[in-house]
Amino acid sequence: MSRAGLLSPMETLAIGGIRLASVAAGIRYRDRDDLVLMALPPGAATAATFTRNAFCAAPVTVAREHLARADARFLLINAGNANAGTGARGLADARATCQALADLAGCVAGQVLPFSTGVIGEDLPVARMRDALPAALSGLREDGWAQAARAIMTTDTVPKLASRRFRLGADGPEATLVGMAKGAGMIRPDMATMLAFIATDAAVAAPLLQQCLEHAVAQSFNCISIDGDTSTNDACVLTATGSLGNAVIDSAGGDAWQALCEAVDAICADLATAIVRDGEGATKLVSVEVTTAASAHEARAVADAIAHSPLVKTALFAGDPNWGRILAAVGRAGVDGLDIEAVRIWLDDCLIVSSGGRDPGYREADGQQVMARDSFAIRVHLGRGDAQARVLTCDLSCEYVRINADYRS
Amino acid sequence: MSRAGLLSPMETLAIGGIRLASVAAGIRYRDRDDLVLMALPPGAATAATFTRNAFCAAPVTVAREHLARADARFLLINAGNANAGTGARGLADARATCQALADLAGCVAGQVLPFSTGVIGEDLPVARMRDALPAALSGLREDGWAQAARAIMTTDTVPKLASRRFRLGADGPEATLVGMAKGAGMIRPDMATMLAFIATDAAVAAPLLQQCLEHAVAQSFNCISIDGDTSTNDACVLTATGSLGNAVIDSAGGDAWQALCEAVDAICADLATAIVRDGEGATKLVSVEVTTAASAHEARAVADAIAHSPLVKTALFAGDPNWGRILAAVGRAGVDGLDIEAVRIWLDDCLIVSSGGRDPGYREADGQQVMARDSFAIRVHLGRGDAQARVLTCDLSCEYVRINADYRS
Repeated sequence: MSRAGLLSPMETLAIGGIRLASVAAGIRYRDRDDLVLMALPPGAATAATFTRNAFCAAPVTVAREHLARADARFLLINAGNANAGTGARGLADARATCQALADLAGCVAGQVLPFSTGVIGEDLPVARMRDALPAALSGLREDGWAQAARAIMTTDTVPKLASRRFRLGADGPEATLVGMAKGAGMIRPDMATMLAFIATDAAVAAPLLQQCLEHAVAQSFNCISIDGDTSTNDACVLTATGSLGNAVIDSAGGDAWQALCEAVDAICADLATAIVRDGEGATKLVSVEVTTAASAHEARAVADAIAHSPLVKTALFAGDPNWGRILAAVGRAGVDGLDIEAVRIWLDDCLIVSSGGRDPGYREADGQQVMARDSFAIRVHLGRGDAQARVLTCDLSCEYVRINADYRS
Repeated sequence: MSRAGLLSPMETLAIGGIRLASVAAGIRYRDRDDLVLMALPPGAATAATFTRNAFCAAPVTVAREHLARADARFLLINAGNANAGTGARGLADARATCQALADLAGCVAGQVLPFSTGVIGEDLPVARMRDALPAALSGLREDGWAQAARAIMTTDTVPKLASRRFRLGADGPEATLVGMAKGAGMIRPDMATMLAFIATDAAVAAPLLQQCLEHAVAQSFNCISIDGDTSTNDACVLTATGSLGNAVIDSAGGDAWQALCEAVDAICADLATAIVRDGEGATKLVSVEVTTAASAHEARAVADAIAHSPLVKTALFAGDPNWGRILAAVGRAGVDGLDIEAVRIWLDDCLIVSSGGRDPGYREADGQQVMARDSFAIRVHLGRGDAQARVLTCDLSCEYVRINADYRS
């Protein structure tokens, strides 16, 4: 599949003051980078959203705690070990890595935010991480994004990087936004096994930055589904360095705020799309769009039922316009008093279902033509009101099963 | 996998007055039976439960309607075509097959209950079914259960038959209960692509029979999950002929009622287990048992989160005790204020999780030993109250994807 909208990993990206280093710490993988250090300049504002899984990983607990200090200077990210399901030992390990970095960097442990992704339930190899920190600190550079995007991968097959430039109002300066993310399984609303790290050179007050991030995440990372599972480790971080020198954005409203929100929305959408495109075993990117629902909740329930259905997803894999499975998913979504006569379903612009069954004008060849595309939409009209929802999903392939059956062996 | 508790299809079963015929109508398959006619004796009481999918199939609508007459004489069952998503034409087709049978059999269409299973969205081949009816009528016989259990199969790999004898109270006569069912995908609480037909020679008043069936279905067919999808066609039918000559069971209470309920509960459990064992691509039968929950709803939510998780199910397929995925599923089940320190998780009797992480006494080899079994339990203790729930599930294999990607091609 093509990855339109994402920059080539070869391209050099930078946000003044944000420096990254990637090193091979031998956490799980051989012969590849698996530890990323991201240094933030003094005075940068940082916002984050985290998984809602009750069994959140130790680094999530510690990162939340340290974030509350509001003067984060380092993000310490490892791939291959999630440090989740590791109890009190896991918390101590996460704190120990922060302390080790703080000792070397001359800051306090509370200024380090830890992030981990990988296998759940194994103890974090703290000693190996500690040993790798000096090389990481000395390797920090502003053009380290592409290498870092590769180092945070687990079952991802491609790194996920996106950037955009946006003007802070008509006469404002041009700001830059750069982000990287990793997937690629356990993806579902409420964040998933994903990590995303985004930075801008604009100056933004921390509460506004958090508000901007939450809005963007709700529409992007929280609207994707690969397998319906929600991970213990998900986190999305947005840092604003202020190196651009703009007047600090400290209230919601105005052109600069609007431009920032639009840019953050867009980059989150780019990265979320990239995660689904690279979903474990995925061969197709499918947008499930539900309209004319009685409420947003109802629209989302229908979109989720379709996006999570293994039967729909195997049909997508087969390129088979088996619309009966879509209709069955709509029917079991729990919509109270659904009038099936009013429901219409399209594959892109091809109307397949009306009046409770196959549309009279539908031809199987037309459905097959849409399904053969790399990317298309399943559109559902409920005929009940004005609410809508959109969820991005992918197909379910043999490769998904193989990846997840083999991952630990 | 072994199919303990089920009778061999070779064994002859019978309920006095219930006659079955299976014929090859060419509905979808070549060279196999795909149409079953089941004749009920006059005066038999019949109860049924149906799918809750809003897009219920045409035969479900018609069977519900005809069942309300309370004098059903025939069940007309076809495999290969679901007659679902077929709109007004589907309803007319279902009625036309009932009428055709009624004309030949000398009854009214309202005494025929139609059932269909198979592909959604294709028109029912009414002419072929009508052509097959004379042979079906002349082939009716009391020992036709085994052949019928085979004729209603779609992606099932084995027929599902069960029977038991039970005494109607200490001094009562011995009654017989025989049932058959088909799966094997789109299985989930609220019935699924399953059909089940059960009969007894005991005399039972219709309202009591319905009550008895609903109780049994709630604990059996509504507690199984193969892929989390719910079909448009599910139905479970229980007929009581009264040929045994016992005093009609017409009130809830007493030894005979108790014995009937226990027997129906047991046969539904047998058939539900057989459906999961033969789940599409399934290699393992797994019982998810949640205890000490604050409410039955909460217990069920946790059990469902585990039973539906593709990541848990692929780990089951791999025989990999990847308990982190179980823990992650518990964590995302939406239990308000879950104390992860109190959660304990076992594989059969092997304690794997306590105090928020791997139990100190757990050894991977022990978990692997349990996972290597054909059948085992995932047991979760929440430490919040007295409620519990149990859901039967199976693993997710490459074969599941292959079956569902290929089913229509």
